[in-house]
Amino acid sequence: MTPELKDLFDFLRFPSVSTDSRHADDVRACAGWLIEKLNGMGLQATLHETAKHPIVVAKSNHLPGRRTVLIYGHYDVQPVDPLHLWTTPPFEPDIRDGKIWARGSADNKGQMLAHVLGVEKTLREKGELPVNLTFLFEGEEEIGSPNLLPFLRENAELLKCDVIAISDTGMVGPGVPTFTYGLRGISCCEVTLHGPKGDLHSGLFGGAVANPAAGIARLISSLHEPNGRVAIDGFYEDVRPLEAWEHEMWAKIPGVTDAQFLHFTGSPALYGEPGYSSAERTWARPTAEVNGIGGGYQGEGSKTVLPAEAFAKLSFRLVPDQEPADIMEKVRQHLEWNCPPGLTMEISVGHDGKPYATDPNSSFGQAAQNALRKAFGSDPVLIREGGSIPIVQSFRSVLGVDTLLLGLALADSQVHAPDENFPIENFEAGIRLSQLLLEELAG
Amino acid sequence: MTPELKDLFDFLRFPSVSTDSRHADDVRACAGWLIEKLNGMGLQATLHETAKHPIVVAKSNHLPGRRTVLIYGHYDVQPVDPLHLWTTPPFEPDIRDGKIWARGSADNKGQMLAHVLGVEKTLREKGELPVNLTFLFEGEEEIGSPNLLPFLRENAELLKCDVIAISDTGMVGPGVPTFTYGLRGISCCEVTLHGPKGDLHSGLFGGAVANPAAGIARLISSLHEPNGRVAIDGFYEDVRPLEAWEHEMWAKIPGVTDAQFLHFTGSPALYGEPGYSSAERTWARPTAEVNGIGGGYQGEGSKTVLPAEAFAKLSFRLVPDQEPADIMEKVRQHLEWNCPPGLTMEISVGHDGKPYATDPNSSFGQAAQNALRKAFGSDPVLIREGGSIPIVQSFRSVLGVDTLLLGLALADSQVHAPDENFPIENFEAGIRLSQLLLEELAG
Repeated sequence: MTPELKDLFDFLRFPSVSTDSRHADDVRACAGWLIEKLNGMGLQATLHETAKHPIVVAKSNHLPGRRTVLIYGHYDVQPVDPLHLWTTPPFEPDIRDGKIWARGSADNKGQMLAHVLGVEKTLREKGELPVNLTFLFEGEEEIGSPNLLPFLRENAELLKCDVIAISDTGMVGPGVPTFTYGLRGISCCEVTLHGPKGDLHSGLFGGAVANPAAGIARLISSLHEPNGRVAIDGFYEDVRPLEAWEHEMWAKIPGVTDAQFLHFTGSPALYGEPGYSSAERTWARPTAEVNGIGGGYQGEGSKTVLPAEAFAKLSFRLVPDQEPADIMEKVRQHLEWNCPPGLTMEISVGHDGKPYATDPNSSFGQAAQNALRKAFGSDPVLIREGGSIPIVQSFRSVLGVDTLLLGLALADSQVHAPDENFPIENFEAGIRLSQLLLEELAG
Repeated sequence: MTPELKDLFDFLRFPSVSTDSRHADDVRACAGWLIEKLNGMGLQATLHETAKHPIVVAKSNHLPGRRTVLIYGHYDVQPVDPLHLWTTPPFEPDIRDGKIWARGSADNKGQMLAHVLGVEKTLREKGELPVNLTFLFEGEEEIGSPNLLPFLRENAELLKCDVIAISDTGMVGPGVPTFTYGLRGISCCEVTLHGPKGDLHSGLFGGAVANPAAGIARLISSLHEPNGRVAIDGFYEDVRPLEAWEHEMWAKIPGVTDAQFLHFTGSPALYGEPGYSSAERTWARPTAEVNGIGGGYQGEGSKTVLPAEAFAKLSFRLVPDQEPADIMEKVRQHLEWNCPPGLTMEISVGHDGKPYATDPNSSFGQAAQNALRKAFGSDPVLIREGGSIPIVQSFRSVLGVDTLLLGLALADSQVHAPDENFPIENFEAGIRLSQLLLEELAG
């Protein structure tokens, strides 16, 4: 095992699940490991406390007259359930088929550590970097980065830079360098329907009062038309139509055909908003998704109960120029309007993030495309992506700079799901890319 | 504490949850306790093995020329979750406000033990019983009595009798003797929708494939019209219309007004099939209930996942003359017809039981009404009940006899729910009732 892979394995072993308060100490221990790694390679790393999980900042020796590049990443990970669907334990990294298998291997530990190790390599080979470098690593990305925006505002001087780079997106196929110029935003909420004061016998009371589990089904089914279009009033109002060149370029990308979407997902069939390809549906069209639904008896066998409550966890993926607060207000109105009779509703609004789009042919955009071309030996493709990185929007509003998205994950990397994985070759390309990117951005 | 209450507490401490295989030994231990109790009071008790949980039969000294009465009960109980909603632990009986609080206190251990203790008292006071008595106690009622019907068929001679009595239903109010002449039947199934081969990132793939959690919501919402009527084709076809005298008598029962249904359930409002009172909706009209719904992330916080599958546990309460097998076939056709696109469906059919109705004014019916009148000191009311006791139908078909339903639970006894309870006065009335019933049935 290379020293780089050993570092990654050490990093992956921390169960830094930010959403679960039982893992708070693991998140902190993971930040501590990073601090030690960054200081050991000659950067000045500092731990910054927040209301929840700490932020790590590390700087090279900044010299006047050079460009300043900030590289962002996150060291927290998604929960691992359903645990029984993992082939090997999520926090015991394993190598099979040329890939590293672990929670966070692709999202985002593998990608962010590639940048760290690229910088370490340049420092070892050349003694210095071609730019002023700042690393910014947070532990709350998977819960919507609640403390990053205040941190940016309070530390704008410390984080001052000319451009930001992030590897937390995907490649359209193995070995195909990919530059992402747009991201979907997000709005989340949880809706709970309350019925009887406690669970009831469905024989003695069934028929006389509304059933919250049936109610949540009726309420959630109101979110879509049967053809897959979102049925919330005004939901598509501010959606920027797909441009002709996007439609044409995306249709030619071999890695993102409808057939490949079908293969990657393993769904019985594709299904979505009529009139769009799968790439267009996920990159340029908004959605309403049910991330979780629950109520009543969940165990083995049957239990003839009429449950007291039922819930649904919802997230809405947004595209330019939808506004998260505006969409959440429309969602709330829709839910209130459609609340089934005989039940009371509670809505808990969660995190959000604006959608993002930038010009792929700006000077920094060209530098990024050059670095990708050299690292992979072929021309990069230009895409948007369906995921959300809300902090990209924050970087623009607080630090006034654009973000270059140079993703290294693959469609079958299983991010947010069991058996998450990251190819060793992508990890190694990421280390090369990091070195080349700083050279290209130096101008 | 009286010796009778002490016996009940001992009986309630067994966590005899029949649906949960981890409790198989507890169910067996509970049967063992019963055998010992019944033998100790002078009956001949025997344990009969089945494919799952044992059946207990106990007989008095049977003499020729007397009527033979079989009293049925069940010593298994429902699961206890959600456990955190119990005020005191479900298997540590407690007395508060003149009631016994424990899982099974009302359904059915408290009611069945009242009969055992009534027989014990008569034997102690008089040395013999006025009838030939057979107790039949099973441990699988809460899972649909899968082994009782074969047992009845194989032991028809052992169980030969003139009439059967069961206390496993309810009273319309405290101190109001209640004779139940009808029960709803039941058909159960679980439906699972399968989508992607594993959980997906809802950003990367959301919009391109069908979401099983959204699909189960759409499928389940198709079961009802918005006004609460079941929307399954032909569902009401064989429903026997409510008779005028039933409508009139039930409207006069003080304990079962709409206001009281609202109070007992604690629901924000009543809701159900238009054109019927709450008593009529629960006693004489069929239902489609969601006992459980689930899919995707169930934990704390949010997880932006597109789940691989989602399920719903359904039960249908049936009234004369609906046939469970016919209804389940209609349900299956409805589900298949309404399966959302892009998903595959799996239906697992559960237990069922026919609805029941008998003549409350037969000679045995009159005897039961007399016993109730003497035990409680007032005229009994005649009702149907919304719950299901499928074995009543089996008794009729295999042993050729009718069943007298002399319930002792109250509407707020919380059967099948947290904080199940049984009033001490009902327990004591049950002991008196058991003694009087055997006298009346002796003719």
